[in-house]
Amino acid sequence: MGNFAPLHKIKVLDLTVLLPGPYCTMLLAGLGAQVIKVERPQGGDLMRQMAPEAFHYLNGQKNFMTLDLKHPSGKEVFLNLAASCDVVVEGFRPGVAAKLGVDFASVSKANRSIIYCSLSGYGQDGPYAHMPGHDINYMGVAGLLAISGDPSSGHPEYPYGPQYADLMGAMFGASSIMAALVDRGQDGQAQYLDVSLAESTAMLMMPRYVEFMSKGRPSKQQFMSRGPYGVFETRDHKFITLGIVEDHFWDNFCRAAELPELSQDPTLRGWDARNRQAERLRPLLEKVFRKRDYQDWLERLIAADVPVAPVNSLDDLAQDPQFLARGFFRPSPKDEDMAAGLPRFPLRDTDRRIGASAPETPLGRDTDRWLSDLGMGRDAIDSLREQKVI
Amino acid sequence: MGNFAPLHKIKVLDLTVLLPGPYCTMLLAGLGAQVIKVERPQGGDLMRQMAPEAFHYLNGQKNFMTLDLKHPSGKEVFLNLAASCDVVVEGFRPGVAAKLGVDFASVSKANRSIIYCSLSGYGQDGPYAHMPGHDINYMGVAGLLAISGDPSSGHPEYPYGPQYADLMGAMFGASSIMAALVDRGQDGQAQYLDVSLAESTAMLMMPRYVEFMSKGRPSKQQFMSRGPYGVFETRDHKFITLGIVEDHFWDNFCRAAELPELSQDPTLRGWDARNRQAERLRPLLEKVFRKRDYQDWLERLIAADVPVAPVNSLDDLAQDPQFLARGFFRPSPKDEDMAAGLPRFPLRDTDRRIGASAPETPLGRDTDRWLSDLGMGRDAIDSLREQKVI
Repeated sequence: MGNFAPLHKIKVLDLTVLLPGPYCTMLLAGLGAQVIKVERPQGGDLMRQMAPEAFHYLNGQKNFMTLDLKHPSGKEVFLNLAASCDVVVEGFRPGVAAKLGVDFASVSKANRSIIYCSLSGYGQDGPYAHMPGHDINYMGVAGLLAISGDPSSGHPEYPYGPQYADLMGAMFGASSIMAALVDRGQDGQAQYLDVSLAESTAMLMMPRYVEFMSKGRPSKQQFMSRGPYGVFETRDHKFITLGIVEDHFWDNFCRAAELPELSQDPTLRGWDARNRQAERLRPLLEKVFRKRDYQDWLERLIAADVPVAPVNSLDDLAQDPQFLARGFFRPSPKDEDMAAGLPRFPLRDTDRRIGASAPETPLGRDTDRWLSDLGMGRDAIDSLREQKVI
Repeated sequence: MGNFAPLHKIKVLDLTVLLPGPYCTMLLAGLGAQVIKVERPQGGDLMRQMAPEAFHYLNGQKNFMTLDLKHPSGKEVFLNLAASCDVVVEGFRPGVAAKLGVDFASVSKANRSIIYCSLSGYGQDGPYAHMPGHDINYMGVAGLLAISGDPSSGHPEYPYGPQYADLMGAMFGASSIMAALVDRGQDGQAQYLDVSLAESTAMLMMPRYVEFMSKGRPSKQQFMSRGPYGVFETRDHKFITLGIVEDHFWDNFCRAAELPELSQDPTLRGWDARNRQAERLRPLLEKVFRKRDYQDWLERLIAADVPVAPVNSLDDLAQDPQFLARGFFRPSPKDEDMAAGLPRFPLRDTDRRIGASAPETPLGRDTDRWLSDLGMGRDAIDSLREQKVI
C-alpha cells in the first residue's frame, strides 16, 4: 500500500486549540490532508505554552498561520482562505464563531460547498451548551463514570487513563468530516456538522447501555464484576492480562494453570456465571498467578491458546515486540526524549506518521505563503503585519 | 441538514461477528451505507445467541444474508457480490480469510477497486498476530491499563467501563474506510487496510504518552493524581464532576465554595501544582462537597462559571436534559426495555439513528434479494438452499 494519503487533495482550515480540535485535524493530516492552523497573532494556541511537546505532537504536520479574526481585514482574509478550502473546523464555545463572523452562515456564503464542523462539549444548543467543561464533565454526562472503577464500590468513579471524551469527540468529528467528503462530489452543498463531545462519548457507551437495559438494569457490582478477566500480578511483581470470555478458553486456562477442579465446576460455565462468582474466583486467581513468574505464565498460557498478553507501561510501549515488528513507532527527528519516536496512523504499511514531522513549529511560520497563494502582494502582507492582523 | 446519509451510494460486504467489526459497519450504516451482513447458514453471528439485544443494536440497519464460504458455490457467490460492492470488512483471525479464499488477494481480482479492511487484535503480522485476545489484552499492550485506576496504587488496573479497544479499532477501521472512499474516485485502485485494535488503542494513548515523556517519565501516582478534577459525592449521596484545569476556574470555584484561603494559596496556582497537592486537597474537597446537596452545588457552581456537570447513571442517560433537548435518543420501535430509545449518530439534526431500525433481524432475511440482484434465478437459489450453501 505504501504511502496512504487519501485526503491529499483536501484543504482544512483549522481554528481549534488545545486538545479535541487539534487531535481531530491531526487525524485528517495523518491521512494526507493539508491543514492550515489559524492562530491569533499574540501567543497563538495556549498549548504552545502549556505543553510544547503535546503541541508539537498534535500540530507538527500542519501549516501555521496567524490571523486576528477580530480585525475586519483578518476576517476578510479568513473568508478568502475559506473560499479556497474544503473543510473548516472550529472549537469555540457556542456563539463565539457567530460573534466573530466566521460561523457556518458566514463561511457558507464565501464557499457554497464548505464542510464546516463545530466541535463543542455539549453541542451548539440545549441547556448545557454554554456551560464550561472539561473531559471529566463530559464523561460524567455520558454515563461513562457510572460503570468505571471498582465495581464493588457501587458508585461512579474516574477511570483515569486517556482523555476519553476529548478524543471520542475528535474521532467522531474526523469521521463525520470524511463521510461528508465522500458525498461532496455529488451535490456540492455546504454541510454543517455539529459534534458534541458528550454525545460522542455516549456512542462509545452504547454496547454497554444496551447490555445494561437487556439485563434488567443491574447494579454496578452485578454489571461490571469480572471473573477470569482482568489484570493479575505475577510472582516477580509484574502484570499480565487474562481475557477469558468463552468456555473453551476457560478450559484451556484451567488445564495450563493446573486447576482441573475449576474446569469441572458447573457453577463456572459461561461468561455471566464466572462473573457472578467474581468474589470467590478473584482471590483464588490472584493467589494462583503469584505462584509463577511473568515469563513463565506468558509462555505457558500462550502455548495453551489462552487470551493473555503483556501489560505495557508507557515506558515499554515503543519496545513492545509486536509494535516493533509492525513498525508502529517511527523515530522522531527532533526530541531526544522521544528517541523511540511516535506512532504512524494505525494502518500497517502506512508511511504517514501522525504527529510531529517538522522539527520546529513556530507560530505563523506559513502565513506569508498562504497569503501569497490568495494573490496578496508583499506590500499588502507587510501592511497586515504592521496592523498586527497577522 | 436533515437526513445526513453521505454514504448512501456505498455498498459494504460485512463478514464480521461479535463486537468490533459489527460496530465498525454500524457506523458506516449510520452514515447511510448499505451493509450486507454475511453469516454462516448454521446459527450465524454468535452474538445472536449470546446477546440478542446487542446483536439487534449493532446490526439492525443491515441486510442479512447467509452464505457458506467453505462451499465452492458459496465462495463464488461471495466473490460475485464483492464485485458489485465498494467495501469488504472482515474480522477473522489472521490467515483465515486467505484459507477461505476471501482475502484481499482473491477479492481484489474480482473487484479491482475494492476497499478491503481487516480488523484484528494485533494486526495481520508480527509475533502476537495469532494470539487469541479480547478487549482487556489489547488495552494492556497499548499501555492503557498502566495509567488507569487509582493513581496511588502505582500499578496497572482495569478501568472497567466500555470496551475501549474493541471500539477504538472499530472507529479507526470506519475512519480508514471513509478516508479511502474519499480518494477512490481518483485512481480506482484496490486498497488494503490492516487495522489493529491494539494500535488503535495506542493512538488514543498518544496525548498522554507525549506528556509522560516530556515530564521525564513520572510514576503513575505523580502522573495521574488530580486535585479539583474528578467525581465528588454531595450531602444527599449524589455525585457531581468537577473539571478545574485553569486558574480562573479555580478562583471561581473557591469563591462559590466559600474557600478564599485556597484561592490565595500560592502553592495551588496552576494545574500541575494543584495535582501535586492532591493528597492534601482531595480530603478537603470531599468534605466541602458533603456540606451541600447536589442541586445546590450544581446551581451554585454553574452560576459561578465552574466546569461542573451531572454524573448520569445508565438509567438517567436518556432523560438527561441536554440529550433530550438535542433529540439525541430516539424512541425505539421494538424493545419495551428500550422505551427511551437509542441515540442517533452523534451529529445534531441527523435523522439517521444508529442501531436498530428494523423490528426483527432474522438470519438470512435478505439472502434471496441479493442473489436475485446478482442475476440468479429462482431455481439456482433453491438449489443453493438445498445444498445448505445459504
